[in-house]
Amino acid sequence: MQKNCLEVCLTPALLPLYKVENYIVVIIDIFRATSSICYGIENGAEAIIPVSEVEECAAYREKGLNYLLAAERNGEVVTGFDFGNSPFAYTPEKVAGKTVVLTTTNGTHALHLSRQAKRVVIGSFLNLTALCNWLKTQHDNILLVCAGWKNNFNLEDTLFAGAVIEQLKELEYKLDDPAIAANDLYQLGKHDISDYLKKTSHGERLRKLGITEDIAFCMQIDLTTAIPVLEGEKLTKLQD
Amino acid sequence: MQKNCLEVCLTPALLPLYKVENYIVVIIDIFRATSSICYGIENGAEAIIPVSEVEECAAYREKGLNYLLAAERNGEVVTGFDFGNSPFAYTPEKVAGKTVVLTTTNGTHALHLSRQAKRVVIGSFLNLTALCNWLKTQHDNILLVCAGWKNNFNLEDTLFAGAVIEQLKELEYKLDDPAIAANDLYQLGKHDISDYLKKTSHGERLRKLGITEDIAFCMQIDLTTAIPVLEGEKLTKLQD
Repeated sequence: MQKNCLEVCLTPALLPLYKVENYIVVIIDIFRATSSICYGIENGAEAIIPVSEVEECAAYREKGLNYLLAAERNGEVVTGFDFGNSPFAYTPEKVAGKTVVLTTTNGTHALHLSRQAKRVVIGSFLNLTALCNWLKTQHDNILLVCAGWKNNFNLEDTLFAGAVIEQLKELEYKLDDPAIAANDLYQLGKHDISDYLKKTSHGERLRKLGITEDIAFCMQIDLTTAIPVLEGEKLTKLQD
Repeated sequence: MQKNCLEVCLTPALLPLYKVENYIVVIIDIFRATSSICYGIENGAEAIIPVSEVEECAAYREKGLNYLLAAERNGEVVTGFDFGNSPFAYTPEKVAGKTVVLTTTNGTHALHLSRQAKRVVIGSFLNLTALCNWLKTQHDNILLVCAGWKNNFNLEDTLFAGAVIEQLKELEYKLDDPAIAANDLYQLGKHDISDYLKKTSHGERLRKLGITEDIAFCMQIDLTTAIPVLEGEKLTKLQD
């Protein structure tokens, strides 16, 4: 029997190299979009709609009061919006039963390019084991798509891809070179992921924005079990 | 004083994200183009002209007998050509005083996209230390461009980028995330690079082509000291 593939697309700029329709795609944007999405869906958000631009997000204001709008600029909640991109905002009190419109450039870009996949799900350290357990039941090709930073490689998304591979390795998938590299980097970082990621350029940028607590939050492993899945334009809780 | 940058472009597909005019660019295509180029220039080739297509290479036939034409398809020398892409062909007896036209898809693509750089030089394990010693004297931004495999990431080129960073680290360049990752992967592989690279998908492909000896040749560190540099369309020996 031919092995299924377990591959890593290191940045959305490389997605055209893959036939996404042959894969289950996992979107990864650790700081902070996919972490916030996992936490929001876990806490009862009916749906989360990722958009690229603040203006797109604002347009949902006219659609009714059931939408919560999330947008940041330079680390501050944009005036008139309900909250920013901090995962701490996605509490049950705030999001249960609501639809959140989330402004996230890198994550939205990766999602849009992956629409033709067999399934598009969301991964973060928060739902790592739940995600991997579900992937193990699928017996299908898997593409881990790192949202990256401005279309380029970043360490945190790649390290998470390596963590997924670590849990799936026992199933003997065929790995490509990016998957081998991601898993090797995870071996280097796994004993103290937060410490390992301190050296990233992106981590430095986020620290400058004063969101050290958000970063620590996003590094928590297995805080949640919900798997957000793309249905049309919305991310909702996977039911099967 | 602001630090110079030492960055890694993991595949030519990501080159548009960099302003190459701000960097000295090192082109890396370990299996086998840049290894063969370093060996050929070391052995007295007057110039090496990299082209993408066998047809482009063949067109040089009409320009005179001083050109040696190198082209392979499926691991075999193309009929009517002087030799293929094996570095073993680039001996002093064959190449001294000659201009070699080399057919190489990944390497040529990376070179063409880097033309606007301050300088474009060629790196391989063969000339590793000579290259690094020269780079240390430049006090400039450096971009290590991995030719990769069909526009995607490969381990061997990235590992070599990590080896260059290892030698340059003492100069305190500002590293980007791909550079940090490349150097970390090098830490994992450096004790036995050949063994580490056995697991790559590209290595497997090359083994199937029956060029195991070429691969071993390309893994030799510091066999040569010449640094090939791009002048117009030709690679020649750097004189300064």
